[in-house]
This record gives sequence, structure tokens and C-alpha cells, in this order.
Amino acid sequence: MKLYYSPPSPYARKVRVAVLELGLADRVQEIETPVAPHKPNEALGLKNPFMKVPALETDEGMVLFNSPVICEYLDAKAGGNRLIPAHGDKHWKTLRRQALGDGVLDAGILRRYELAARPENLRWPEWLKGQQLKIDFALDVAEREAGGWGKSFDLGDIAIACALEWLDFRFANDDWRSRRPKLAAWLAQIATRPTMQKTKPHA
Amino acid sequence: MKLYYSPPSPYARKVRVAVLELGLADRVQEIETPVAPHKPNEALGLKNPFMKVPALETDEGMVLFNSPVICEYLDAKAGGNRLIPAHGDKHWKTLRRQALGDGVLDAGILRRYELAARPENLRWPEWLKGQQLKIDFALDVAEREAGGWGKSFDLGDIAIACALEWLDFRFANDDWRSRRPKLAAWLAQIATRPTMQKTKPHA
Repeated sequence: MKLYYSPPSPYARKVRVAVLELGLADRVQEIETPVAPHKPNEALGLKNPFMKVPALETDEGMVLFNSPVICEYLDAKAGGNRLIPAHGDKHWKTLRRQALGDGVLDAGILRRYELAARPENLRWPEWLKGQQLKIDFALDVAEREAGGWGKSFDLGDIAIACALEWLDFRFANDDWRSRRPKLAAWLAQIATRPTMQKTKPHA
Repeated sequence: MKLYYSPPSPYARKVRVAVLELGLADRVQEIETPVAPHKPNEALGLKNPFMKVPALETDEGMVLFNSPVICEYLDAKAGGNRLIPAHGDKHWKTLRRQALGDGVLDAGILRRYELAARPENLRWPEWLKGQQLKIDFALDVAEREAGGWGKSFDLGDIAIACALEWLDFRFANDDWRSRRPKLAAWLAQIATRPTMQKTKPHA
């Protein structure tokens, strides 16, 4: 399999952590691929029309995009029921927690594009505020729940941990921890996993 | 179950079509909920921290967000293997086609916010161009594949049909059909389904 990724992409990081956690590293070739929404990578577009990472090309030549689909595929390739509980309440809770992490990233990425890519005179404060509010609300939900986390490790943990460490990477001055001690303690523990250490974001 | 939706939302429409196709209409209460990224609906935020639709509150009080998760949940509630083939190549092809439709919407929604919500003097042409290119590439992929579609009906069909009809709804002057006759013919057929007719987007 071929994985198109970029070192700072938090969605690609989810997949890279999953590859390592699932023991699939020797079956997945990582291909570093630059992406930016205002500088379309048309070569990547031949694989993934959205010119985003991650994209996974399977051994059969099918290209999957969107990190949740790719992570589900890899989990199945590794036998299934590994990072995504196959059935029942645990299944939905894992997918819900993945969506919580991904949603933080969706809002965070839009803030990042607004602040780092868009020319300064075209920025819209209401947009930035609206996206930040989504992040704040989601982290508050995570804080309320984090006391019950940590008994197992699944795709929900990967998504939330990658989201939080990406916030630290791109918005290092935002202090999300002081009002959220349980979430901060949970991340401190997850961040020690070798698979998280090996995939730290960089520019 | 309670479904938070808005009449123009294409992601919510996917879920509403799924509810009808799965015969779950009498188990799902639809709650109309206004949303806009620059005017956060904080009441909805108590259910879904991202203040987006669709959000589904289950009978057990869990709130699911992101249309793919909700559609998977509803498919399971209806017995499973209905709109999402449970296993094998068909499973991944369905999820890939859903991601193709959703990706068109993700780019289209960002164009819509830029053109209809953001003040005119803050618009960024490179952003609009970059998002449109994603849509164009994705519709070209769909045109190449559409000749093989139509033997069954699944969540991939729902996602792509909702995406195309949303483009018609919001960007009525964009002529995506002329260079894509197979995709246009496919949509013309899908659009006649009662579940699509009953959920047409409106402002």
C-alpha cells in the first residue's frame, strides 16, 4: 500500500499512528506529498481528486481518501476489531470520539488557513471566532469525558490525541490545558506512546 | 431518535434520505435547526459541540455527529448491510463513493461561505479557485465511473446525488453537466426516487 502524507498533517498523522499501532509498517510505503488548498497539487489530484492528504492507494490500485475510511480499511487489513471495536456501544463510542477529534481539526485547520495562508487584509474575525468556539465547546466535552478514558486504546484516542498535539503545534500560545486538567493529564499519558512519539508533527 | 437538520444542508439531506430508504421515518423525529459558521447556534452546541447539522440523538441519549457516522448507525439500526455493504470490495467502494460526494460538498460549502456569508471585500480568489478545482477533479472522476453505476443503490449513491443536487441548488449557473453526460444521466435517474424528491433542498 502507498500512503500519501505530509509531516504537519494531523489527519495523515492519525493514519500513520494507526499503521504503527496495527503492525502494518512493512506493508505501507509512506510518500511525502506537499499540499495547500490555495496551491493545488495536481499530481496528487490524479490519485485523490481533492488533492488532500492522507490518501491511501491499496495493493489493488483503489485510492481511499478521508482518514476515517483509511483507518477503517487498515484496521480490517490487520484482522479487524483492533482500533475500532467491531460491534455494539463501544463501536459507536469510538466513532463518536474520532468525530470529536476530527471536528476539532476541521475547525482548527480553517483557523490555520485563515491566519497563515490567507492574505492578512482578507481575514474575517467572525469566521475565526466561530471556528474557535467549536474547538472550545469540543474540548469542554472532552474534559467532561476524559476521566473515563484510558482503559483501552482505540481510534478515538488517536484522533483526539492527534488533534490536541496539532493545536499545540500550530497554536502553541493557546492555553487549552489550564481549564481542562483531566484532558491534559490524559494527553500527557497518550503522548508517551512510541507511535505518537515517532509521528510528531513538523513543518 | 432525534435528528437535528436544516432544509438546505446537503449533509443532513444524506441522513434524511437514508432514514426514508431504511424505513426508519417513524423512529426519527426531525428537528429543524438553523446553523451558520459565523452565527454559532449555542443551543445546538449543547448537543453537538461543532454546532453543525446533521446531529443524531439516539434513544440512549448519545449524540452522533458527522453524516457518515450517523448513516452507518442508522444502517445498523435497520438491520445492517442495507445502504452499506457489510464486507469486502463493495464495502470499500461504497465508502469511497460516499467520500467522493462528501468531498465535493466540503469544497462546495467552503465556496458557498466565501461567496454568500463572508463580506465581499474579504474574499480571496485563490481560495475559491482551489476549492473549485477539487470539485472539478472529483466530478471528472465521477464521470469516468458513472457508466458502471446504477445496478444497486447505496450510501455512495446518496452522497453523490445529494452533492450534485446541492451544486444545482446553490450554484445553479455552474454547468457541470455538459462535459459529463454519463454523470448527468445517472443523476437524472436517481433524482426520481421518492426519497430524493421528498428531501429537495430549500432555503
